[in-house]
Amino acid sequence: MTESQPVMRERLYLFDTTLRDGQQTQGVQFSLPEKQQIARALDALGVDYIEGGWPGANPTDSDFFRDRPQTRATFTAFGMTKRVGRSAENDDVLAAVLDAETPAVCLVGKTHDFHVTTALGITLPENVENIRASIAHVVAKGREALFDAEHFFDGYKANPDYALNCLKAAFGAGARWIVLCDTNGGTLPEEVGTITRAVIAAGIPGDRLGIHCHDDTGNAVANSLAAVLAGARQVQGTLNGLGERCGNANLTTLIPTLMLKAPFRETLETGVSDAALSGLVKTSRMLDDILNRVPLRSAPYVGASAFAHKAGLHASAIVKDPTTYEHIDPALVGNERLIPMSNQAGQSNLRARLAAAGIEVAPNDPRLALILDKIKTREDEGYAYDGAQASFELLARRELGLCPEFFEVKRYRVTVERRKNKYDRMVSLSEAVVVVKIDGRKMLSVSESMDEAGTDRGPVNALYKALAKDLGPYQACIDDMKLVDFKVRITQGGTEAVTRVIIDSEDGQGRRWSTVGVSPNIVDASFEALLDAIQWKLIRDQGAA
Amino acid sequence: MTESQPVMRERLYLFDTTLRDGQQTQGVQFSLPEKQQIARALDALGVDYIEGGWPGANPTDSDFFRDRPQTRATFTAFGMTKRVGRSAENDDVLAAVLDAETPAVCLVGKTHDFHVTTALGITLPENVENIRASIAHVVAKGREALFDAEHFFDGYKANPDYALNCLKAAFGAGARWIVLCDTNGGTLPEEVGTITRAVIAAGIPGDRLGIHCHDDTGNAVANSLAAVLAGARQVQGTLNGLGERCGNANLTTLIPTLMLKAPFRETLETGVSDAALSGLVKTSRMLDDILNRVPLRSAPYVGASAFAHKAGLHASAIVKDPTTYEHIDPALVGNERLIPMSNQAGQSNLRARLAAAGIEVAPNDPRLALILDKIKTREDEGYAYDGAQASFELLARRELGLCPEFFEVKRYRVTVERRKNKYDRMVSLSEAVVVVKIDGRKMLSVSESMDEAGTDRGPVNALYKALAKDLGPYQACIDDMKLVDFKVRITQGGTEAVTRVIIDSEDGQGRRWSTVGVSPNIVDASFEALLDAIQWKLIRDQGAA
Repeated sequence: MTESQPVMRERLYLFDTTLRDGQQTQGVQFSLPEKQQIARALDALGVDYIEGGWPGANPTDSDFFRDRPQTRATFTAFGMTKRVGRSAENDDVLAAVLDAETPAVCLVGKTHDFHVTTALGITLPENVENIRASIAHVVAKGREALFDAEHFFDGYKANPDYALNCLKAAFGAGARWIVLCDTNGGTLPEEVGTITRAVIAAGIPGDRLGIHCHDDTGNAVANSLAAVLAGARQVQGTLNGLGERCGNANLTTLIPTLMLKAPFRETLETGVSDAALSGLVKTSRMLDDILNRVPLRSAPYVGASAFAHKAGLHASAIVKDPTTYEHIDPALVGNERLIPMSNQAGQSNLRARLAAAGIEVAPNDPRLALILDKIKTREDEGYAYDGAQASFELLARRELGLCPEFFEVKRYRVTVERRKNKYDRMVSLSEAVVVVKIDGRKMLSVSESMDEAGTDRGPVNALYKALAKDLGPYQACIDDMKLVDFKVRITQGGTEAVTRVIIDSEDGQGRRWSTVGVSPNIVDASFEALLDAIQWKLIRDQGAA
Repeated sequence: MTESQPVMRERLYLFDTTLRDGQQTQGVQFSLPEKQQIARALDALGVDYIEGGWPGANPTDSDFFRDRPQTRATFTAFGMTKRVGRSAENDDVLAAVLDAETPAVCLVGKTHDFHVTTALGITLPENVENIRASIAHVVAKGREALFDAEHFFDGYKANPDYALNCLKAAFGAGARWIVLCDTNGGTLPEEVGTITRAVIAAGIPGDRLGIHCHDDTGNAVANSLAAVLAGARQVQGTLNGLGERCGNANLTTLIPTLMLKAPFRETLETGVSDAALSGLVKTSRMLDDILNRVPLRSAPYVGASAFAHKAGLHASAIVKDPTTYEHIDPALVGNERLIPMSNQAGQSNLRARLAAAGIEVAPNDPRLALILDKIKTREDEGYAYDGAQASFELLARRELGLCPEFFEVKRYRVTVERRKNKYDRMVSLSEAVVVVKIDGRKMLSVSESMDEAGTDRGPVNALYKALAKDLGPYQACIDDMKLVDFKVRITQGGTEAVTRVIIDSEDGQGRRWSTVGVSPNIVDASFEALLDAIQWKLIRDQGAA
């Protein structure tokens, strides 16, 4: 084959189980609207299957199947193989799953002899017959059938013949996919590859095999890749690696690897377009938003630090050629290069970071040294700029005379009071007054910190609400802004302990930025970070650069 | 060989770079005492090498090498190969590294032809000579030399002969270890295995080869395992996978896998004892504590959720036999099984903790279950009792009726105000009013938060001073008490983000105790922790037990 000939690539199917296995995460319980939102995002991403839950297992799952969004992806209901002593037609648990009327049904069944006898307490042949009859029933109902082979790898190691017989029963009964599950998550990549090859050699073709991994040894991604290399053509996982214990295989990591990396990109194709891939960061953040989780900065591909270059040597090379220290172009997944400031950085770091913020400074501009000095002084006082890019940018702009003063805070006062209410219960209330001067005019605004549920969210919340209540001509610009995270650390500022506050903000365009404030007074430190957050947003939106 | 014969296991060396590469993490900047604490913990864990930093690169690293703890592990200084145009003897950067007087020195050098010409701008032979001469210089100084082959996998793919020549130059010059680095983190496990085998075939023995991986594709652990399977006998990584971008290979994950899983446990041995392995969770938490990070619940082996069984089917099988849904016994790494709704296991733990606080409770006392329930409810609300032993003791005392109410806080109010002073400088001032009832008598006290230097120390300080100003008959008892640390963390309380404050207090007898408060309002959370701190001190000194 010459290079100019198009290569025939095999189709690789992506099966998402965020809404089913992902919901087993400690502390996670999706509401109906959340399930709908996630399903639409998965469909837009381009996964092939969306497993929605277990109809009949809980009210939310049942409601969701009644009221699920229309998707291009094949909607899948999860359930288990029929129980012994009744026919598949008369098993009410199985009936509830089929009643959800999804085009595909995935049934989990045992393949490890120890589990059949210990957990189910039935004979080995009875279990094989349960698998066969259940899959045949799903197929007879005109649905696409998938068989989740629970504990398959442990089962294969204990009793390969029996484990394979279970797969063959499902395959013979017409299952479209046989999914090899590493349920306890303890299998390592080399074993997954070897056993997957053995399954294919035993007569189940790779394009009928799926892989379902858990991250208990930190190998869920590698195990999935090992199975695909061995020939499996369906990969199961969840967004952000959500899932019981240590989580499921992380599709947010697997998708870019499968699309961008050799040998996968040359030999396989998925249903995810390049355009959809460039929305991966947004999809990942959406899930964190729903779960009210702080996004993991170090997440592969999509983390805020995934393309952050702190080491001075790396940063100077990156400026010469980004491929020197980046394994992919961050834009392919919707991420960004970040060259944070810290006391390890030099002038080339600084210029690169300024350029990224749209500020061009000539290599030998003496102001570069002034900015570096200022950063050093501030870091000695307790500031930390590599976690607060927006405050760094503002510091540089102030030195460069590129920081318009949109408004001035003349004074503020915040009060926290705790006392008994009329029902004789102790309650607290925070209240803030802020006086700002805009275009020569003084404006005073007051706000409480009560949220919709009547809970006091504290003095920082009250201050933010008061400050953001009336910024006159700039009000429209900050209306879509919200605080998404707030980090506090007691640190050393010179010889005294001071409080460092880092605030993460987000706006309607999905932009996220971090600012820092430092003071012995925690409210003051917070206020400084708040002011920077608003200032940065105004500069961005007013095009001050 | 028969089964009864002891198997000769090869030694696998663990090289920790938490203090060097781990410090490249965004937002991480260890202080000198923190570096010392981490080094001691690594030594207790049993790693073979501790890389302490780059002497000469920044003041903290230089100080640390001057003032490093005595360790069994081989202390290692990091640096880079000499620059072109000067001899190894006359390279001041290299000299600073050797001046740290560590038994081992690890030098990073280029092995990828593209980097030599693009980033360094020197010829390919010049780079080989830099490597040779630098390693020879380290060896001549009587140190153990390690060569970090930067970008080795990318370099090997681009120009295998040149990449191997670089390794051979270091090896020929006497390097004890040649470390294959996947610097950009983009290499996948299959490739790492293949290339490592090629290096061994080219003449560098596996017991002279190390592996250094980054997690940019979520494969740092799998890549490290692939290299070990191929024959490499040194593994580099960091605690909790700290490191630039997506982090380094996670030793907290790798160590248990290498010690507990086939084929590693049968064929290799590390310097980590079984006893040290059972302290792994504690070591992992210590680092998070230092970084003021919320520990990752889903972390393999050490995460709080790593052995949590939420799915109903799983939980019921676990009760029959834990091996049904657990890949290892959690106690091996110092972790615990977590089964919602089942608190049987906790009772003996609880009795032991109470006994430590001088409270004896009989084994079948029904109040034990009540206390456990209360702890669970509070932890769901965001409390954490592991770091707040005094608050735990108070919670138990309240349930047991052993907690006298010395005083009652009727209300408080705290105000923070920031405005211009008479010199036209912005200053802040905090003021608190607290009303307490003692022996039926109401007492009101007011305090400002100004310290001796005229600095405002903030609302929590003002509250503490007002509260501690006049506690009537108990005043003498709290006069010698002071706040020594204050930790704040935003955490999850039910479905809402709440603030958790942990306060460390100390008294004239040198006793130190920790209390916790939780609220959406940071001032309220602090006040709760303050009250517990005073309550605990009164109980201790009034002998209420």
